[in-house]
Amino acid sequence: DNKLKIFSLTSNESLAQQVADEIGRPLGKCSVKRFSDGEIQINIEESIRGCDVFVIQSTSNPVNDNLMELLIMIDALMRASARTINVVMPYYGYARQDRKARSREPITAKLVANLLEKAGADRVIAIDLHAPQIQGFFDIPIDHLVAEPILTEYFKGKGLEGNELVIVSPDHGGVTRARKMADRMKAPIAIIDKRRPRPNVAEVMSIVGNVEGKTAILIDDIIDTAGTITIAANAIIESGAKEVYACCTHPVLSGPAIERIDNSRIKELVITNSIELPESKKSPKIKQLSIAKLLGEAVIRVFEKKSVSTLFE
Amino acid sequence: DNKLKIFSLTSNESLAQQVADEIGRPLGKCSVKRFSDGEIQINIEESIRGCDVFVIQSTSNPVNDNLMELLIMIDALMRASARTINVVMPYYGYARQDRKARSREPITAKLVANLLEKAGADRVIAIDLHAPQIQGFFDIPIDHLVAEPILTEYFKGKGLEGNELVIVSPDHGGVTRARKMADRMKAPIAIIDKRRPRPNVAEVMSIVGNVEGKTAILIDDIIDTAGTITIAANAIIESGAKEVYACCTHPVLSGPAIERIDNSRIKELVITNSIELPESKKSPKIKQLSIAKLLGEAVIRVFEKKSVSTLFE
Ligand SMILES: Nc1ncnc2c1ncn2[C@@H]1O[C@H](COP(=O)(O)O)[C@@H](O)[C@H]1O
Ligand SMILES: Nc1ncnc2c1ncn2[C@@H]1O[C@H](COP(=O)(O)O)[C@@H](O)[C@H]1O
Repeated sequence: DNKLKIFSLTSNESLAQQVADEIGRPLGKCSVKRFSDGEIQINIEESIRGCDVFVIQSTSNPVNDNLMELLIMIDALMRASARTINVVMPYYGYARQDRKARSREPITAKLVANLLEKAGADRVIAIDLHAPQIQGFFDIPIDHLVAEPILTEYFKGKGLEGNELVIVSPDHGGVTRARKMADRMKAPIAIIDKRRPRPNVAEVMSIVGNVEGKTAILIDDIIDTAGTITIAANAIIESGAKEVYACCTHPVLSGPAIERIDNSRIKELVITNSIELPESKKSPKIKQLSIAKLLGEAVIRVFEKKSVSTLFE
Repeated sequence: DNKLKIFSLTSNESLAQQVADEIGRPLGKCSVKRFSDGEIQINIEESIRGCDVFVIQSTSNPVNDNLMELLIMIDALMRASARTINVVMPYYGYARQDRKARSREPITAKLVANLLEKAGADRVIAIDLHAPQIQGFFDIPIDHLVAEPILTEYFKGKGLEGNELVIVSPDHGGVTRARKMADRMKAPIAIIDKRRPRPNVAEVMSIVGNVEGKTAILIDDIIDTAGTITIAANAIIESGAKEVYACCTHPVLSGPAIERIDNSRIKELVITNSIELPESKKSPKIKQLSIAKLLGEAVIRVFEKKSVSTLFE
């Protein structure tokens, strides 16, 4: 039992501390510093020989620094004779580069999978990968958690449920996720439908499904610049909805995101802490929920060689 | 012959352009941009199917961004059916993390080699690797060039040669390099000898060899914060040398480097353009020589399947 060790890198230390607290053990000691020229210097400061090691790191912005930190840590753990190296990636950077959309593009999400394996990772725990197919990019086991139940519980706690509600997917890719939340809330779904009638003509947006008089909840995996979600929210209100909430697992929130959310018709944006929110991005409209319990449970199940998928039953 | 393509990434575009000019062909078209969240977006904008592709990138500061750019480019080239992918790394970042100096440290120079190979590199061309053993970190061919002849030619051009000269290695690790320059200049060598008489006692520095009345040239592979080299230069002058020059292949020049050099007894610091010097680091004391001809010749020899080692005969 003292063979489980959990380490935090620098991208999301508060989440890592919460996960350690859930599991009931301290974070392992390691120092992550920079040399004068910007190179990362890592030293693990306690023995991990023969241990099952869990490393918590989101490859959020600055994505390249956070990814290299993770790869270097895996290398150090491997050389220090860890029994298994389990990478907990609450946010998987480069997940949107998961296919060649044009000729001569990279598939960086696959490259990242290859790099993690080559460095020495034995297992990956991830949440709401942008495409579930990314699981297939790995030749090592990957546990794929979902945060939707956490988001759903929050809205249920507000007394929202049933037919006065509608769960809206902001695009066709997210319908499965919206469907799951809708089932759990016994609510109908709607879909934001965008299409380009002819090439070089502006996109037309319409809403498939009924939102009139209802409370709408928009659900997505990632909110980045918040363009899609705020336009969708405003359209939902214009189509007669009573009010509109938005939620997502991964609050990338880059560029104009906060300003757009503050200026939108979104009543509240509910996010998780898969990515740490810097002070500059805090807004009274944003409510952050913790995934620490989910991750802690997954870590313990992996360590005890129990099924993680039963977490969702 | 039109099967050779040469691409530049963003770390050292002026050197890449010079290499392309040496070879007599244009740089390939590719776009390297950032998404709003900092992720790198690469698109190769001309066909490279069946070509021998050379990519020029130094993994200098910001090392993690430059390395990821390179790995993503290799992935894109591989998927676009390049015949061979040849990585030209004028500066190899993380080269100093080439062994476990303490327990539970990573060997990041080996990790970098693994990542390059895994991404799909077929061959690497590097210059003055911090340790020549890094060649053995690769399972693919690596051509290891040296810049010392370029530095030597420059000093010969000043009329410096023979017994009025002494070539000084700033530490024991660099003696082989100093020996080579000394041979070519028919000059003797000296070595800066640092030792710690007892643990927790300050280091003592002395000079092994005669510098009195001579012009000294300090030679190193990397000058980073310039602490070692400026202390050595001042000691050489205090030991009676007439004047002291310094030279190196890789001008990392981080932190207080420029200030230290400007305030030191170094008459002139001669460097190469393996790392691009930003405006903020230019100093009247610094002379930058180009390695473009050397790299261009190496690229052509690799493309024509000729020996690169004969470059040094
Ligand atoms: N970090 C990023 N920010 C914005 N767009 C991206 C990013 N990474 C990839 N993409 C693009 O997003 C598209 C995939 O998003 P999606 O259609 O939602 O799966 C692809 O065309 C990618 O080129
Ligand atoms: N980027 C860096 N800046 C300064 N020191 C480094 C860097 N990378 C590695 N080192 C350290 O430098 C030592 C190796 O340098 P050397 O003895 O000159 O081969 C090792 O102890 C490393 O921990």
